[in-house]
Amino acid sequence: MSWENNVRKVEPYVAGEQPKQKDIIKLNTNECPYPPAPGVAKKAKEMMCESLRLYPDMNAEKLVNALAEYYKVKPAQIFVGVGSDDVLAMAFMTFFNGKEPILFPDITYSFYDVWAELHRIPYKVCPLDEEFKIRKEDYFVPNGGIVIPNPNAPTGVFESVEVMEEIIRANRDVVVIIDEAYVDFGGESVLPLIDKYDNLLVVQTFSKSRAMAGIRIGFAIGNEKLISYLQDVKFSFNSYTMNLPTIEMGTEAVTDDTYFKEITGKIIATRERVKDEMANLGFSFTDSKANFLFATHERVPAQEIFQALKENGIYVRYWNKPRINNRLRITIGTDEQMDKMLAFLKNYLKERN
Amino acid sequence: MSWENNVRKVEPYVAGEQPKQKDIIKLNTNECPYPPAPGVAKKAKEMMCESLRLYPDMNAEKLVNALAEYYKVKPAQIFVGVGSDDVLAMAFMTFFNGKEPILFPDITYSFYDVWAELHRIPYKVCPLDEEFKIRKEDYFVPNGGIVIPNPNAPTGVFESVEVMEEIIRANRDVVVIIDEAYVDFGGESVLPLIDKYDNLLVVQTFSKSRAMAGIRIGFAIGNEKLISYLQDVKFSFNSYTMNLPTIEMGTEAVTDDTYFKEITGKIIATRERVKDEMANLGFSFTDSKANFLFATHERVPAQEIFQALKENGIYVRYWNKPRINNRLRITIGTDEQMDKMLAFLKNYLKERN
Repeated sequence: MSWENNVRKVEPYVAGEQPKQKDIIKLNTNECPYPPAPGVAKKAKEMMCESLRLYPDMNAEKLVNALAEYYKVKPAQIFVGVGSDDVLAMAFMTFFNGKEPILFPDITYSFYDVWAELHRIPYKVCPLDEEFKIRKEDYFVPNGGIVIPNPNAPTGVFESVEVMEEIIRANRDVVVIIDEAYVDFGGESVLPLIDKYDNLLVVQTFSKSRAMAGIRIGFAIGNEKLISYLQDVKFSFNSYTMNLPTIEMGTEAVTDDTYFKEITGKIIATRERVKDEMANLGFSFTDSKANFLFATHERVPAQEIFQALKENGIYVRYWNKPRINNRLRITIGTDEQMDKMLAFLKNYLKERN
Repeated sequence: MSWENNVRKVEPYVAGEQPKQKDIIKLNTNECPYPPAPGVAKKAKEMMCESLRLYPDMNAEKLVNALAEYYKVKPAQIFVGVGSDDVLAMAFMTFFNGKEPILFPDITYSFYDVWAELHRIPYKVCPLDEEFKIRKEDYFVPNGGIVIPNPNAPTGVFESVEVMEEIIRANRDVVVIIDEAYVDFGGESVLPLIDKYDNLLVVQTFSKSRAMAGIRIGFAIGNEKLISYLQDVKFSFNSYTMNLPTIEMGTEAVTDDTYFKEITGKIIATRERVKDEMANLGFSFTDSKANFLFATHERVPAQEIFQALKENGIYVRYWNKPRINNRLRITIGTDEQMDKMLAFLKNYLKERN
């Protein structure tokens, strides 16, 4: 008998590579190419470090209130956490305790099955169709809960709010989590449905559209009862998750809507332009509503292009997994970064002829 | 059938009151009365907020390396988290999965039973003796793991490293967590034992002796295998827990040992002086080796003193719980704060005669 017998053994999630060189073009982890709102840097400079000796506000009221005002909901309808991963991990733990399997797409954020394994939650994956679209009927069966990202990752495919509503309506006896990490790049949020469906939890993040992956803020919005259960589990795990710099800088980011619209607009414009130019080089795509493209080439295998890009200091994401092993997920960077990538691809594909 | 059937229902931990008024003397949550090391504020000013658009280093290498150097262990022996609560919550989840109950003292940090309930871990409390000391024999029985704070809270009582070693040695088949949140105020760490016992996990925090409760850093040190299991669970829960400001400012705090020794020394000196002065007013104490006193008065009930202090803007902690309901836990503040409290108590106890 050894202490190892009592260990919860798990296969952890593998995040995208975070190379240490500074001079690369980093298009592999869906970060924002623009800095956070200007007020964030100002807030950092003004921060009273003496206050760090005290515990932060465990309810992160300032941040929660700013989000409540922005999304026009009550503060009691908002839950904040250390990135949307923290929010989702807590939500899985709180809501997915039934005997039936939870459901999510086969091609999706690869943390869902990791959380299910961690919390010993039975799960069943629902295959997307050939165009990487959800088949809504798959979710009209007995289940212990549902999690769907919309837009989906790594496909970028957005499903209409109407289809989402059908799924939510058909599953009133379980919690349905819609993971909207990428919703600000041309998708449409299911947020207006939260007052109608008490089983709907909407999760979003500051890591993509608010350019703050480095600060770790995610949040969930839902009816008050749902949020209150989530808070109970959170306060049974760790009372003080949001530190002082996070609360201060996060609040600043939420309140600058002009900047938010400006950078998300720029990313969408760059995405569409790059798509056109890559199409001319023989690439095809899903109709991504996210801050990345999910691309395949008519002739050259994705893995080869991935390697060639990497050797030239351009990092994109590739998975050697069934159904997506001929696809590249390319984060939308600045126009300058994308032009460098396009120039490389043009040349590479010509030589590779 | 409702989604509420699948909810994990729990009674969350209740943290000490965090009053919003600014003009109070706050001696109720064991924060440090001195600011963090001067380098921390400098680092905040210099921080490159542009970098916040990128994910932080998920291994928090800079911080981990600084800790490894300070505590003279390998980086692979260190685990960092969002406060020691995060570290402990993860450790409970990772190591306490047996059928036997885990053991901890009856009077102790009131989060232990909350984590056990959250993770559905069976537990058994071991009563401290009349002097609030651990009875080591209680831990020489079959169990699923052990967690002991040393010094203990809210008693402040420190148990010798020899006794701790006996308990660790007698329990080689389970993980023993020694929670050393308060060890820097005159106690002695079991850290030198980690190479001898692969079942020992030592947990410490930046919230007390490093004056950074507001930044949320806790850490665990143990043998590499133990830490690696803990990392697997952490990376199955949330990859990026430590944000950029935390890594930067935390590293700065660890490297200023002179300041660290200065403030912990001051707190110890204030504690001993205040103890003498309070003894003259009719108080008696445990021999606290923490940054707080655990006081009882010969004549006036603790709850009354607690109320009187509070009405006069001096917040200390009181629990209306068996065995400790005639005790006050008083955090050591600055000399000036403590003098104000002493002046009030002197006057109050005279009038209350």
